[in-house]
Amino acid sequence: MEGKRVVIVGCGLAGVTAAEAVRSVSENAAITMVDESVQVAYARSGLTYVASGKISSEDLQLKSNEYLTKNLKARLVTGRKVSTLDVEKSRVIYDGSGGLEGEDYDSLILATGSQPAPLDIPGSEKPGIFRLWSIRDAESIRNSSQTSKTALVLGASPLALELSEAFNSRKIETTVVTEENEVLSGYLDPAAGALVRAVLEEEGIRFMCGRRIERVVGFERAQGIVSGGEVITADLIVATGAMLPNSALAQTAGLKIGRSGGILVDRRCASSVENIYAAGDCAEVITDLFRGPQPSRLASTAVRMGLVAGSNAAGGSAESQDLVRNSSFRLDGIDICTVGLTATEARSIGIQFIESESSEYQFAFYYPGGRNLYCKLILTTSGVLIGAQFVGPSSSVWGNIAAMMISHSLPISYLSNLETSFSTLTQPYWPSPILAARRAEEILHLG
Amino acid sequence: MEGKRVVIVGCGLAGVTAAEAVRSVSENAAITMVDESVQVAYARSGLTYVASGKISSEDLQLKSNEYLTKNLKARLVTGRKVSTLDVEKSRVIYDGSGGLEGEDYDSLILATGSQPAPLDIPGSEKPGIFRLWSIRDAESIRNSSQTSKTALVLGASPLALELSEAFNSRKIETTVVTEENEVLSGYLDPAAGALVRAVLEEEGIRFMCGRRIERVVGFERAQGIVSGGEVITADLIVATGAMLPNSALAQTAGLKIGRSGGILVDRRCASSVENIYAAGDCAEVITDLFRGPQPSRLASTAVRMGLVAGSNAAGGSAESQDLVRNSSFRLDGIDICTVGLTATEARSIGIQFIESESSEYQFAFYYPGGRNLYCKLILTTSGVLIGAQFVGPSSSVWGNIAAMMISHSLPISYLSNLETSFSTLTQPYWPSPILAARRAEEILHLG
Repeated sequence: MEGKRVVIVGCGLAGVTAAEAVRSVSENAAITMVDESVQVAYARSGLTYVASGKISSEDLQLKSNEYLTKNLKARLVTGRKVSTLDVEKSRVIYDGSGGLEGEDYDSLILATGSQPAPLDIPGSEKPGIFRLWSIRDAESIRNSSQTSKTALVLGASPLALELSEAFNSRKIETTVVTEENEVLSGYLDPAAGALVRAVLEEEGIRFMCGRRIERVVGFERAQGIVSGGEVITADLIVATGAMLPNSALAQTAGLKIGRSGGILVDRRCASSVENIYAAGDCAEVITDLFRGPQPSRLASTAVRMGLVAGSNAAGGSAESQDLVRNSSFRLDGIDICTVGLTATEARSIGIQFIESESSEYQFAFYYPGGRNLYCKLILTTSGVLIGAQFVGPSSSVWGNIAAMMISHSLPISYLSNLETSFSTLTQPYWPSPILAARRAEEILHLG
Repeated sequence: MEGKRVVIVGCGLAGVTAAEAVRSVSENAAITMVDESVQVAYARSGLTYVASGKISSEDLQLKSNEYLTKNLKARLVTGRKVSTLDVEKSRVIYDGSGGLEGEDYDSLILATGSQPAPLDIPGSEKPGIFRLWSIRDAESIRNSSQTSKTALVLGASPLALELSEAFNSRKIETTVVTEENEVLSGYLDPAAGALVRAVLEEEGIRFMCGRRIERVVGFERAQGIVSGGEVITADLIVATGAMLPNSALAQTAGLKIGRSGGILVDRRCASSVENIYAAGDCAEVITDLFRGPQPSRLASTAVRMGLVAGSNAAGGSAESQDLVRNSSFRLDGIDICTVGLTATEARSIGIQFIESESSEYQFAFYYPGGRNLYCKLILTTSGVLIGAQFVGPSSSVWGNIAAMMISHSLPISYLSNLETSFSTLTQPYWPSPILAARRAEEILHLG
């Protein structure tokens, strides 16, 4: 196979994975990777741990420049922002060292990622409100937290709670303020969210849920917020919030953009324009489950799309599965996982569903020191699993089971009759998901 | 429904679960539970933890006598050994307080469990060799271990290794001697067994594998063994080994017995004689995977068979799934799980198979302190999963995924393409089972 000229814009997780896929499909492809940052190929998912000082920013290096240039034989163009995408001429244009430079491609992969949406709070333009999206952000938060006695975290996403936990564990008095009625909304339904919040409250974190943030206060710098007339000040303020896909380049070039602002792609990660692929946070993902394309936002999706986009860009043929949005995180030692639709989402889409819950001790009943595993299942009234939430030991792997069942519409009896193992320190006779599945069957038969 | 007279022989896990199932199907059934022991309804799986002093024998109480008699309204006949089963008259006979007493049944459930096979070592009839099968055994080992400086464990089953770990953690110099070439044979293939052994060796346990035990030495009491001409002495000797189903009563009464000595049952847990059911260790289990009925031996199977036997004995209709023998345990904080056939077993049955392995770090690459998850998959040459072994975090739940796939012959692509979640402390981009599944696909496509 004649080597294609493959240009990849963006050297994050999706871009690097795409480069690997290109090389694995084609030995001769000429790979060029362009990134506006000089510091490329790092794992954004570790930023909270840099901010909390648990690891250094160097640890986040996904792949070394040497790996990219020597092993993958990619040409790296870093510190250059692509300003124009000329789809007619199959060319990207960036501001090079000697003026505008161009790069012709046979295949183009857009892996430009996302960025935090601007805050919609009066006064939030003041300096002193940290965001967390770059290594520099993470290092700034880390430095500032070293002298902070109080912290205010705006938002209650996984990232927000990971940060709050880190601050709190360093004896910084931490308050979380969110407009949502419960933490982790969008990930968990309120009951599961409340479980997580209770654990973090126990550790000393203060939560103010369902509170509109009216404005930021402070003279030269942000020093706090006003909510419900109450002024809450803190030495350190971090605002988390919605992410926006970096799709302006694609949009200007005429590529179709989805409702969330991400580049629309098909199962091959191909955009609406020939020979242009998109992968990761800048794109939307095909999914029947959510009844229409969805923003990706997950590292797990970024690597999967990167693989597919890279293979196809190099002349291969690969297809993505439907996204089921399997997402997990660990807070205060407790694993949390959510897959598919929450009940809140199912309701908003207009799906008729039933839900069942169970919370069982995860050691044998006779052995102390174990924890409960909370499981909630959401099924259509015809008995198809469309969502699952887990809080407790091994949640992420239970989430994998749910993901397999949702992806392939497996009967719920596969779960209720599953031959799970039993052992004193690993699993009870009847793990919660089995009992939740049985309850779901009872509800469906009765209903 | 007219209440049936249901007699259950054996008040272990299978018997108690059967009683619960009887009661849930029939409010009017007259339940009689007979057990030769006075101390009934305890969880045998916790005996190693009683022996190691981590819990007390009272903790093992599965259900209280009050629960059985008040909640389940069962009549308890304890300390009575059933001596005869008269299938013609539908009657069991035991030695009561005033001579032989009888109990008529409409349905009989045999849940008589198993016992350790006698040791086949010259000199093993000497006192001083402990077995571990009853609460008294566990308490004896616990008492003896309090003054022991050295321990010798014969066998390398999960139970043997759990005990060894417990002794070792209490600074008792512990040696494991097994005739098998590697620990956990029958559960894991040698590579996985060696991984587990390495962890335990690191903790200080000494292993002598592939060593025939020639005889027991000692004058009045056993004080050690001879193996390969070498004398190995210890203050405390525990012998583990094969289990024998308690099926003599059934056999004498003419019920069909399987090759392993267990009572033969169908998917309804019905024996070869009408109205007689069997559940748990005393029975064999239907399984296509193993090409013929197999001993059960697992608590997870005992509860499942108990449910089915109890439902059917009460007039309901329930069926067991094929056993896939999902089995897990935790040693030195490491979870181990094995499902289905090992490669060794597949070979001995004459199945053509391929195998693939993977061992990946289970945190994100940038976060220290995580562990690897080892995964081995065994597939028929036509691509059907027939076995899986896991050593590392969340092994038991990964084993559940394998169990679901094996039970329903799901395509291996369901695993290789599974949308697993990613998060720093919960799961890497590509967990080992995904990579092992991909390798299996590569082997199958190439092969």
